[in-house]
Parts: sequence; structure tokens; C-alpha cells
Amino acid sequence: MNKYIDHTLLKPQSTQSEIESLCKEAIEFSFKSVCINPTWVSYAASLLKDSEVLTCTVIGFPLGASSTAVKAFETAQAVKDGASEIDMVLNIGMLKSQKLDELESDVKAVVDSASGKTVKVILETCLLSAEEITAASKICVKAGAHFVKTSTGFSNSGASQEAVELMVAAVDGKAEIKASGGIRSLEDAKKYIALGATRLGTSSGKAIMQGTTSSSAY
Amino acid sequence: MNKYIDHTLLKPQSTQSEIESLCKEAIEFSFKSVCINPTWVSYAASLLKDSEVLTCTVIGFPLGASSTAVKAFETAQAVKDGASEIDMVLNIGMLKSQKLDELESDVKAVVDSASGKTVKVILETCLLSAEEITAASKICVKAGAHFVKTSTGFSNSGASQEAVELMVAAVDGKAEIKASGGIRSLEDAKKYIALGATRLGTSSGKAIMQGTTSSSAY
Repeated sequence: MNKYIDHTLLKPQSTQSEIESLCKEAIEFSFKSVCINPTWVSYAASLLKDSEVLTCTVIGFPLGASSTAVKAFETAQAVKDGASEIDMVLNIGMLKSQKLDELESDVKAVVDSASGKTVKVILETCLLSAEEITAASKICVKAGAHFVKTSTGFSNSGASQEAVELMVAAVDGKAEIKASGGIRSLEDAKKYIALGATRLGTSSGKAIMQGTTSSSAY
Repeated sequence: MNKYIDHTLLKPQSTQSEIESLCKEAIEFSFKSVCINPTWVSYAASLLKDSEVLTCTVIGFPLGASSTAVKAFETAQAVKDGASEIDMVLNIGMLKSQKLDELESDVKAVVDSASGKTVKVILETCLLSAEEITAASKICVKAGAHFVKTSTGFSNSGASQEAVELMVAAVDGKAEIKASGGIRSLEDAKKYIALGATRLGTSSGKAIMQGTTSSSAY
């Protein structure tokens, strides 16, 4: 279970000592990565350098509404700072405005700037229709993303069974699935893995590993 | 009243046609600006070019946790795209980690990149103690910001009388105050102006001008 988990802390008010604790827990439980805001990437990467835990960060987060040039620059900067996984947010407004070429270019720009690092695209499925989830997933595959991911944890709700099922069908084996948002227990984690997710974004990794339930929202 | 208002639409799912409507309303009511996500700056600036309505956008929004280099790049890009007002988010985690030099550098980098355009710094006061509001306001003045602003509209709550009073006292006439978040009626608007705010961020500008109350959260 531990290797499915991106151990996550994205609150804007998180302090350096909280990031340090997160990294220590990630090492203790051998989680796949820590997922943190860009401002903490250098610091986390320095703490994790002698471990197998990866440093994952977020791009255009959580609204996905920064410009493509900025998402690309932010990605390159994050890689330079030590990130080896990149969770970008889809440009949701472009999708809903039917600007699908721009949407694909936006993802592709991040994939190109990531220099081969793993790119996950957060769809924010709670804001999308079933058709939009399917279309967005296919566009992400076409643009070269490695994962599609359900949620930022900052919108109306998180992962859902329906969204993950739609994503699994749409990517058709050509990308992996990260479920995130509201995964607070071992039972939740097992449910999303059974549905086809190969990665889980959660701030409840410790509770999941200990078989308890966390009260955390993400 | 109209010239106090930054007519605001920052939802990630906003479409191009909603941005168009926002710009038309801003022209109709002669609001000070439209405040939109960076992805829409070029489009809004093109619609507003023959009007007096300014194009305002947001930087490092809404978490304030992108790196300083990215905030500076995003600001330069926004100005290039046609923005003439820049609402950046303070690095809240740096403030709470007592990294006050980095905090000041983060604001200063945006001010420098803005090439003389108006810079407002969003403190996200609902996450800060009274002491932190005061300290952050003084740092923003020192870094050359033109305004301190209460809220992103994406956190636990928006503007409050207490926060605005603290900000007014802290800046001591050396910066202006923008109140934002939860301003939904003419009564709300008048209250914050009486407290010393010279700008209001709201998605309820139309309701305010018509003397009604909006149900919008921002």
C-alpha cells in the first residue's frame, strides 16, 4: 500500500516544520512521494535526497487558470529545484469553452518542460460532466501525460467511483490513474485501487497505513 | 461607488463567454477593473482596449505558494498580455515560518516585474493572527506594494472589519486597502469604504450598483 501513496500537504499556511514532519513520515513509511507546493520543493528535495521518496509538486494549482507559458516555466523551475513528479491542473475554463487545441497545448507544454519527469494532470472531476471527463482524459493521453488525476482537494469534492471508472475507460491503458481528495482510510484506498488507480493522493497516509480513519479533508 | 469596484470572476470553470459578459458589465457600469485569471488576460484586455476599465489579474493565486521566480515570471507575462493591475498572494507559509526576508523578497520581485503597474498583495487575513496581519502589511509597504488586500475568496472566509482596521493602522497611509471576499451588497461596500478601503473586490458589483444583495460567495 505505501508505494501507492503521494503523502500530501498543500495548505497555503503550512510551515517549514510541517513540511519537515511530512518528509520524515514519508521516509518512515516509504511512501512513493511527498506532494507539496512549489515554494517547498528545494527544501523537501534536500531532506529526501538520501531516500527513495520522490519530491512531487503542483503546477498551476489549484485553479489551472494560469497561462501556458507560466505553467511551462513553473514546471522547469520545479524540476530545477528538485521535483521529480509534476501534478499540473487542467485548464478547466478552456475545456468548458471548447478550446480543445489550446487545452492539449497547455498539457503538452508542461510535459515538454518536465524533461521526462512524470506528469499527472488533475482534471478536477467534480466540476466536469461525464463527457468532459472522458474528453479531457483522452486529450491528456494525446499530449503525453503519464497520469490523469481526479482532484485538487480544493474544490467542491474529491475522487468518486464514477469519475475513476470514466478515466480508466478513457485512457484505455495508455496512462495511469491517480485518485485524490477525500481518501481518508484503508478502505477508501483499497476501493480506488480496485477500480484501477495506481496512485493515491492523500494527507491521510499515516492513518491508511495504521488502518484508522483520518479527519483530514484531503 | 463604481470606481471602487474590481469586477471579479475567478472560478476555474469560467468560460470565455462568461468573461465576455463580465467585461461588458464592467464597461456598462464603468467599474475600475475586471479581475480575472491569467489565462483570460489577453482576451479581456482586447475587449476593454477602448474603455477606461482596467484589466486586473492574479498571481500565485490563490495559495501564494508558488516560487518567487514563478511569481515574477507570471507577473511579467501578465503585463505583456495586457494586465495593468496585479493582485498577488502573499507567501503565507513563509510568514508563518518567520522567514520574513524571503517574504519581502517575494513581494519585491513581483513589484519589480510589474514595471510600474499597480501591485496589490492579498494577505488571506482569515488564516492570519492580528500580529501576522500587521507584520505582513508593513512588509508589503516596505517591498513597494501599492495595496494590501484582505482575501482571495477561496479560503475559509473573506474581508472582516477587524482585518481592515489592522491593515489601515499598519500601512499608516503608505499603501491603500482593498477589501474582498463576501462583499455582496451596497451596505457591505459602504461599510468597508467607511473603514478606509479604497478598492473592493467583488463578484456582486451589479447587485451593489443596483442596491440589491447577491448570493455570490466572492
